[in-house]
Amino acid sequence: MLKLYYAPGTCALASHIALEEADADYSAVRLDFKANQQQSPEYLNVNPKGRVPALVTDKGVLTETPAILAYVAQTFPKAKLAPLDDAFAFAQAQSFNNYICATVHVAHAHKGRGYRWATEESSFADMKRMVPKSVAGAFGLIENGMLKGPWVMGDEFTICDPYLYTVALWLEGDSVDLKTLPRVADHIKRMSERPAVQKVLAEEKN
Amino acid sequence: MLKLYYAPGTCALASHIALEEADADYSAVRLDFKANQQQSPEYLNVNPKGRVPALVTDKGVLTETPAILAYVAQTFPKAKLAPLDDAFAFAQAQSFNNYICATVHVAHAHKGRGYRWATEESSFADMKRMVPKSVAGAFGLIENGMLKGPWVMGDEFTICDPYLYTVALWLEGDSVDLKTLPRVADHIKRMSERPAVQKVLAEEKN
Repeated sequence: MLKLYYAPGTCALASHIALEEADADYSAVRLDFKANQQQSPEYLNVNPKGRVPALVTDKGVLTETPAILAYVAQTFPKAKLAPLDDAFAFAQAQSFNNYICATVHVAHAHKGRGYRWATEESSFADMKRMVPKSVAGAFGLIENGMLKGPWVMGDEFTICDPYLYTVALWLEGDSVDLKTLPRVADHIKRMSERPAVQKVLAEEKN
Repeated sequence: MLKLYYAPGTCALASHIALEEADADYSAVRLDFKANQQQSPEYLNVNPKGRVPALVTDKGVLTETPAILAYVAQTFPKAKLAPLDDAFAFAQAQSFNNYICATVHVAHAHKGRGYRWATEESSFADMKRMVPKSVAGAFGLIENGMLKGPWVMGDEFTICDPYLYTVALWLEGDSVDLKTLPRVADHIKRMSERPAVQKVLAEEKN
């Protein structure tokens, strides 16, 4: 059985939703970030990066959200979570997820994780001030083209959708006005109506 | 015919090498970053992100290195650049490439692209000072486990290898001592001996 390590409020939500959408047989294990459980020896033995998500499979552990999402899509083909038979469309989905991972998430991370890239309090404050602009800029490309609508890839729900939804939930905390992103706002609403999403959110809140 | 937009010294080198290793029919178009060609209206029409690489295919444009690399592997299966028939092994390769993209490259980018995440000169200086430590830290995980050896994924050369090679070439400029990373240093040497790599490097230097 698959085992997903997650923490509430993190990007692990995307993998959690994808597993639920795939109707996978899995368990979800919550880490307490306030107790720094992600840096415990036990967890570092699972994922030396000390981050979530980590997906434990019978072949080994997978990390990095875009890789986990593609793995779920490929191993649960009946759920049709990615265009597996079209290399170009699959690459488009991968490209979207990589953009979320390396640009959107990274911009957001400068609000609270500035210590990864600097040491001075003044730098952390500067980074925090920039977040509304850098995150809004990154979402501008999504609003104006990358999000085809109604789902990210167009008519079909894919692994891109839980990932976009996950980082879009951070917009309010990043002081980005959702009214400037009406297509993203519509996507959030559409996602929040899915039973799999409601089930996972309830589980992560418990 | 495929067309790759690149600039010397950038992560586009990974896609360039992969196309060469795949024996693809492609042309490579150099952008002059000093003249800011990546922000020209003509190029923004190709890639609204204003970055490289961008791969123009007969179905459309692909961006983001991990997505381009997987696309090359999937569309040139004879070159055997990824474990296409093993979802777990494929996900491991994707995971490695995502780590390069979202952690290693991002750490490196704080040396010269701090303006993406902050506005003050003092922050840029702080970020620059941190780069040797953050890049060395990111490479530590590669040295101590992720790089299986002799190639990233083990005995088989894959799309992970040109990507690791590309960012490893930045280590000296990032003031990371290669002597502390003997397995990465061996990988650089091994890569530099490949005819495809030598051909691409010569072309990018011309």
